[in-house]
Amino acid sequence: MKINGTHYRTIWVDPDNRRRIKVIDQRLLPHQFIINELVTVEETAGAISDMVVRGAGLIGATAAYGMYLAALAAHPKRLTEDMARAAALLTATRPTARNLAWAVERVQAAVAGMTDPAVIQQRTFATATAVADEDAGFCRRIGEHGAQLIKHIAARKSGGRVNILTHCNAGWLAFVDYGSATAPIYAARDEGIDIHVWVDETRPWNQGARLTCWELAHENIAHTLITDNAGGHLMQQGLVDMVIVGSDRTTHTGDVANKIGTYLKALAAKDNMVPFYVALPSSTIDWEIDRGKDIPIEERSGTEITQITGPDDAGILHTVHLCAPGTAALNYGFDITPARLVTGLITERGVVAPEKQAIARLFGR
Amino acid sequence: MKINGTHYRTIWVDPDNRRRIKVIDQRLLPHQFIINELVTVEETAGAISDMVVRGAGLIGATAAYGMYLAALAAHPKRLTEDMARAAALLTATRPTARNLAWAVERVQAAVAGMTDPAVIQQRTFATATAVADEDAGFCRRIGEHGAQLIKHIAARKSGGRVNILTHCNAGWLAFVDYGSATAPIYAARDEGIDIHVWVDETRPWNQGARLTCWELAHENIAHTLITDNAGGHLMQQGLVDMVIVGSDRTTHTGDVANKIGTYLKALAAKDNMVPFYVALPSSTIDWEIDRGKDIPIEERSGTEITQITGPDDAGILHTVHLCAPGTAALNYGFDITPARLVTGLITERGVVAPEKQAIARLFGR
Repeated sequence: MKINGTHYRTIWVDPDNRRRIKVIDQRLLPHQFIINELVTVEETAGAISDMVVRGAGLIGATAAYGMYLAALAAHPKRLTEDMARAAALLTATRPTARNLAWAVERVQAAVAGMTDPAVIQQRTFATATAVADEDAGFCRRIGEHGAQLIKHIAARKSGGRVNILTHCNAGWLAFVDYGSATAPIYAARDEGIDIHVWVDETRPWNQGARLTCWELAHENIAHTLITDNAGGHLMQQGLVDMVIVGSDRTTHTGDVANKIGTYLKALAAKDNMVPFYVALPSSTIDWEIDRGKDIPIEERSGTEITQITGPDDAGILHTVHLCAPGTAALNYGFDITPARLVTGLITERGVVAPEKQAIARLFGR
Repeated sequence: MKINGTHYRTIWVDPDNRRRIKVIDQRLLPHQFIINELVTVEETAGAISDMVVRGAGLIGATAAYGMYLAALAAHPKRLTEDMARAAALLTATRPTARNLAWAVERVQAAVAGMTDPAVIQQRTFATATAVADEDAGFCRRIGEHGAQLIKHIAARKSGGRVNILTHCNAGWLAFVDYGSATAPIYAARDEGIDIHVWVDETRPWNQGARLTCWELAHENIAHTLITDNAGGHLMQQGLVDMVIVGSDRTTHTGDVANKIGTYLKALAAKDNMVPFYVALPSSTIDWEIDRGKDIPIEERSGTEITQITGPDDAGILHTVHLCAPGTAALNYGFDITPARLVTGLITERGVVAPEKQAIARLFGR
């Protein structure tokens, strides 16, 4: 997608040096636009856990490139051990995310049993690139399918503006390109639909306020920032036509792990008969776990709640305290929205009911 | 209640000069503890709209003293007009709050038809003092009734810790003393019940993070700060035994206007069979409006969402931006929780079902 008119992906290989992976540092967006370089698997794991990169698809692609960087550095006599250690290091960074483990497993499978370092380096690179390219392709197709839903609502409103509420950032910054929840918005916009997005600020990391608003502004999509508290009231007032969120892991039975607070919006959508859609590539689906409650929920540092960093009017960054010193804070990163609250899943293969048989049928499982 | 061991109310008359009203400035708590002086009705209205003082009971008591300050300044020949103008000025500051209008109407009624300035000054002072004292008394009795509910839960848990979730600050800072939602917590603590409070940070003004945590810390009540997004997940995990919130206006049919986001917590409580109580003095009840949806909802400045002020590690205050410049933000202050989601109302006369006949019976209407 575009930043000031220039096309970017969120992750790419340095064209001058294939041993360097470039990523947009998402920690200080939109205040500062900084591109970071990843050269080792340790740096890559750090970038994922510190949220230099975040979002379902992007941490998958980043982890895949991390496996390639591990292959570059692996000792020729300890290839299998070094790659296994890299896989464990990467997978441990964010426990809830499914794409992360999926991507690491995919790279490992691509080089299983191989012993030639050059071949392993070539294969890990090719697989990581395939993961990244596929992610962008999946999101593009999610956009095409999801845009149909938006067009139906626009038609029902006789072409009137469609108000879509989203939580967190399941935008192109969360994937390699396009995004999951935002892809239908961009695709529908391209078809001339008038869209306005309610953006949950998404405490504590403020992905909505910082990232989604910034993305939508650069794509000229009308949007309004709201607190995470506001969505229920807006739905009661008839100001929300549909909700689209992303997912960090979706069980093959339709339960959705997504940024904490998603469940509250799903309850409000149900209570106000607002359609609630979850957009996700199939790489997000967990085919093993039957119940959402069995998905491990990441707990992050309480300082993400008690402090915040931003620029003053002069553009100077400050980290300020939001409560009295010593206040205990608990910071779960995700919650589970049960399938019963989900209207449909928007995938690269189409829109499907959040239901075991329907999902299995769509993906030929 | 106590600050560093010293008893404070949130509003009091200067003992050395009865023409000066003292209030705790709540805007920079807990970072700075500042006492402001109100000398005119204009200052008083400004203190209410700028949220130097906030909270259902406290803005009622403040407005009542504002009417007294107006009486002190009124021109002897324009007493009725000056008092009416003061009443309109005060009532317009916060449209959702019921206690505010209730207190102003009560002071006006106490001096209706009177013409002697000295008598009017004496009567407005006596009425404002009665409003403040009654508010404290109401809250103390809310505590006694609500504590019984907490004791029942503690007994069911065989004396185990009772986890209570609250939203915003319906603590003593929101009233003259004790608070509404916190009063049962303080009363149950005094009876030896082991309590832990989950405090919603309550964006955008962070009443939970700044005020409720500070209150609870000074009263030695165990508590943990969470984002507004987290409550649903905690309830799904069985970590919340009950919810107690306050109210800014409750219809006589049981619909509750309270800080925005309350409705989302009520939905989650219902979905997880967690009891959801609303604590309020009868001065919060609107006996005219039948449906919550007819309560006017205050809209405040979007800058409350896009900027935040807090101290850095050195204690120096900074105001920082939370999103890109120019981002539009919409800031409704309250939402409506329909009676069907409320387990019970905790009032100064006892706990009552959120239902027209039951409420009328309790208050002899």
